[in-house]
Amino acid sequence: MPRHVAAVVQLTSTSDVKRNLGMAEDLVRRAARHGATVVATPENTTFLGPHGDKVRLAETLDGPACSLFSRLASELGIHLLLGSFNERATVPDRCHNTSVLFGPDGKRLAVYRKIHLFDVDVSDELRFRESETIAPGSSVVVAETPLGRIGLSICYDLRFGELYRALRREGATWLTVPSAFTLTTGKDHWEPLVRARAIENQCIVLAPAQHGRHDDGGLRQSWGHSAIVDAWGHVVAQASDGPGIALAEIDLSLVDQVRSTMPVDQHRRLP
Amino acid sequence: MPRHVAAVVQLTSTSDVKRNLGMAEDLVRRAARHGATVVATPENTTFLGPHGDKVRLAETLDGPACSLFSRLASELGIHLLLGSFNERATVPDRCHNTSVLFGPDGKRLAVYRKIHLFDVDVSDELRFRESETIAPGSSVVVAETPLGRIGLSICYDLRFGELYRALRREGATWLTVPSAFTLTTGKDHWEPLVRARAIENQCIVLAPAQHGRHDDGGLRQSWGHSAIVDAWGHVVAQASDGPGIALAEIDLSLVDQVRSTMPVDQHRRLP
Repeated sequence: MPRHVAAVVQLTSTSDVKRNLGMAEDLVRRAARHGATVVATPENTTFLGPHGDKVRLAETLDGPACSLFSRLASELGIHLLLGSFNERATVPDRCHNTSVLFGPDGKRLAVYRKIHLFDVDVSDELRFRESETIAPGSSVVVAETPLGRIGLSICYDLRFGELYRALRREGATWLTVPSAFTLTTGKDHWEPLVRARAIENQCIVLAPAQHGRHDDGGLRQSWGHSAIVDAWGHVVAQASDGPGIALAEIDLSLVDQVRSTMPVDQHRRLP
Repeated sequence: MPRHVAAVVQLTSTSDVKRNLGMAEDLVRRAARHGATVVATPENTTFLGPHGDKVRLAETLDGPACSLFSRLASELGIHLLLGSFNERATVPDRCHNTSVLFGPDGKRLAVYRKIHLFDVDVSDELRFRESETIAPGSSVVVAETPLGRIGLSICYDLRFGELYRALRREGATWLTVPSAFTLTTGKDHWEPLVRARAIENQCIVLAPAQHGRHDDGGLRQSWGHSAIVDAWGHVVAQASDGPGIALAEIDLSLVDQVRSTMPVDQHRRLP
């Protein structure tokens, strides 16, 4: 069974879309130079600035961000996930928070629109109302690839185990969770949840994340700790602080091995 | 809102039922002396010896083990969980792996029979076939108490998030997971799963566990790390190696606070 190198890209995105895309491109190229053939960038790769600007700056699936990622995927011959960008929606005053997977020929393999929106009071000073600018998706999305099926999700989705069970039922062996967890929630929830989704679904998890201070005009800081988790639940790669990459060799046969020695899906007895 | 002290009891149970019950009693009394009013013991509290002896030694809900725990609960005026004992079943050659919660008056508040059975090849040398001696239960069980609703589960159940969602839907604010995780699975899966169940359900988790070598004639060693996790997901108590207790003060108002600032149940969009 061939081994692959996967990479997660960590960013500190701001309101400067051009800068963000440039940094993402540099890091994707760096990951590919190190041999990565599966690369994923975080939620809000293109823009992490004032919430009010999201809709104004939203693009289509053929806009500059997707075009760049498509070109990069085909030039580098890799599977490449644009963790998320703001996608134009038909709903007034809203856009979608959309993750797109490109194949090594540059074609779009999957488009996932974030289902669970972060309407949370992280602290008295730090309140999020994602639903004021984002229209949620409603489809569970799995991409068929030569590396196995890849199930897509975004950030706050991570708290809803039922999404990952649905992805696993659809045959996923990989799960992607591009994220921008806050410092407050990330320090206590990020690692256990990322590992739990790998363990309970016996899937490889790619969890690229935003780190640091953005310029959304608020107090927001992102937790980082971009991670790759294998199908047994080991954290096999984790990013340092700041923009960068984390790489791991992935042995696809571990997925089958874990599933055959501990056949949790055969043991399942509740709906 | 009153604060309570909860305790988890860690044991190294063997095939000597009398010794195991004596040790459990000592530790429950110690926890109560420290002010604990909610105390839980691990899976297999009464017996962790050769699998073939489980059925022969099985007791009823009025047998010596339950009688002892009922007396202890009423004498000490505490809520007391007998993590599990082997309960006589009507199925031939099988017993149930049963967890029983007693109230401060000594009355049984809940009886839960383990639903998911551990038929797992932990390694080439260490294979478990719990279903050969245990008849599974099929009921999701929540106990009503003055401290809130307590949802019951046992060990391998921890891998099945849908059980905990069902307990949460039934109004649980506490989850009990008496366990005997092995060294191999415990080192990688115990803490992330225990924390994930607390985080995603916004419940207090009591997770008393077996630790060390038993005398089941095999290579089995248990991971220990008995834990109490608060509704935000902090591990607020963790046992050292060997028999002992871990104590934590529980502020019940944290459950409501976590649920109101991060209302995940209102954000849920998939079945």
